[in-house]
Amino acid sequence: MKKFVNDPKQFVPEMLQGIALANPDTLKYVPDYNLIMRSDAPNANKVSIVQGSGSGHEPAHVMVVGKGMLDAACPGDVFAAPPMDYVLETTKLVASPKGVLLLVNNYTGDRMAFEMAQEMAEAEDIKVRTLFIDDDVSVQNSTYTVGRRGVAGNFFVMKAVGAAAEEGADLDEVVRIGEKVNSVTRTMGMALTACTPPAKGSPLFELGDDEIEMGVGIHGEPGRRRAKMKPANDIIDEMLEAVVTDLPYESGDRVALMINGLGGTPISELYLLYGRAHRQLADKGITVGRSYVGEYCTSLDMAGASITLVKLDEEIERLLAAPAEIAIRTF
Amino acid sequence: MKKFVNDPKQFVPEMLQGIALANPDTLKYVPDYNLIMRSDAPNANKVSIVQGSGSGHEPAHVMVVGKGMLDAACPGDVFAAPPMDYVLETTKLVASPKGVLLLVNNYTGDRMAFEMAQEMAEAEDIKVRTLFIDDDVSVQNSTYTVGRRGVAGNFFVMKAVGAAAEEGADLDEVVRIGEKVNSVTRTMGMALTACTPPAKGSPLFELGDDEIEMGVGIHGEPGRRRAKMKPANDIIDEMLEAVVTDLPYESGDRVALMINGLGGTPISELYLLYGRAHRQLADKGITVGRSYVGEYCTSLDMAGASITLVKLDEEIERLLAAPAEIAIRTF
Repeated sequence: MKKFVNDPKQFVPEMLQGIALANPDTLKYVPDYNLIMRSDAPNANKVSIVQGSGSGHEPAHVMVVGKGMLDAACPGDVFAAPPMDYVLETTKLVASPKGVLLLVNNYTGDRMAFEMAQEMAEAEDIKVRTLFIDDDVSVQNSTYTVGRRGVAGNFFVMKAVGAAAEEGADLDEVVRIGEKVNSVTRTMGMALTACTPPAKGSPLFELGDDEIEMGVGIHGEPGRRRAKMKPANDIIDEMLEAVVTDLPYESGDRVALMINGLGGTPISELYLLYGRAHRQLADKGITVGRSYVGEYCTSLDMAGASITLVKLDEEIERLLAAPAEIAIRTF
Repeated sequence: MKKFVNDPKQFVPEMLQGIALANPDTLKYVPDYNLIMRSDAPNANKVSIVQGSGSGHEPAHVMVVGKGMLDAACPGDVFAAPPMDYVLETTKLVASPKGVLLLVNNYTGDRMAFEMAQEMAEAEDIKVRTLFIDDDVSVQNSTYTVGRRGVAGNFFVMKAVGAAAEEGADLDEVVRIGEKVNSVTRTMGMALTACTPPAKGSPLFELGDDEIEMGVGIHGEPGRRRAKMKPANDIIDEMLEAVVTDLPYESGDRVALMINGLGGTPISELYLLYGRAHRQLADKGITVGRSYVGEYCTSLDMAGASITLVKLDEEIERLLAAPAEIAIRTF
């Protein structure tokens, strides 16, 4: 295994310590519950936003804690849901009189942890709601889900509810916005290579030298089909078609377009994919109003990419454009 | 080869098209000279800043064009210096009465192209200066250089001169600042894996399953030594020691600390390295005033990282903190 790791069991805590040390004025790391939170949370004047999931998808979610985004992130170990009691403690730590919104990508393990935590938080009189994100069009039920998976589209839900909460929206309103963004967001991903979890030390699945996995999940779950390697344009065209026809996005629509790297793909290749997708959308009469190219939701060191579209209206576009101050914005 | 590529000869132009399409209001792509420039350049009230180099180091330099950073970037093909006449045309396109500063990482091919372009631009009465960056402590002369190589530390030179130019500093002053930042900046990198240029289609050098290259160059040039794979802390400690003792950085100093990914390493691992480096510096009495974790200067899909330190004073810290608006800042 060629990775920067000491003891694999300490991989996540050591990463979290690094995040906190790099952001001493704005973030804190709470080792007892393995969480990253805003130093100034909870803020009694805003709904608190929390997201958790297995680690290995960074920057999601521990590196997008900050003003205008999450108030806290409670990660599990690599590709493992956070323990229910850690979710509960996170919820208690950021509990605001205006309430707490828990964002969860739709995986069975995460749902269980967050639903139980919600119940227990409510028993302690905390106002809390849960919102599930399921933007992945690749497959319906899958290895770890009933229903669709939640993948890189979660960025847009976080960004919109984070901005709305910062503006002072109440919990019902924040939930309305989150559900609306999720309902107009669609993603599909693909893998050029497998990923290697630190504790396993070898690739999570086998992929031949000339093979790719179309519709892969962010934990390496099978997608729609195993295919032969092909030119970049053919790959992105297939993914774009699957996404566009799903909502569907139609001529006259204005969208946000995200090309997300899965961890091992350089940004040069992502911009090449972006250019093709942008032109193909223009040919369909669909206008790109906002562009996102980079790593937003990864799968450790997997080479590959996903494409996400969000149908924009005035409200969503305003919330996506609102300022945010997060760890990984370091220019 | 598992990469997002169509025709390898079109890899760079297709990437540049993507950058321009993602930033329609602020950037333009000039296909005739393979360059990316600010739409509003030249600005008669500021010195124009240009950097060029081989491609394959993105986001450097084509993705850091924008307000407070570069006015234009003129990339060559992957790992190849830009043609001299393209550098000249770029210089002419952004020529401002206040002058043009050409930034060049110290590689022989790049030096030749830029020095000849400077001479020809001066013959056309353009006020132009050239500044060479040589922050890499790994080796003295190397495969492609006389003297030290210029690597990820170039970010800090670009950022500081970009900010100074935006404030209206004259050409002498901008050069003074760039030389000062370069003189207090030191970097060392290492590779876990080789990188694969699109046109070659196979790894550029051989590295065994249990081997790493300490002090690697950003084109895969040999470093100080081939070593056995070892824990993350041991790797970063060795690099930190090489960097700290070079300037040297001393107890009481305040520094910027950058952990830069080389393209194939996920950001989770970079934060793990960051945490260790930050604590080691604290033990030496060196305070981290500004933190940078992510990809700044890569080597295609190489897995690996570099560490950069910049000794801060009031002037440098102010310029590094000044706002910048660039392509890859997309939250």
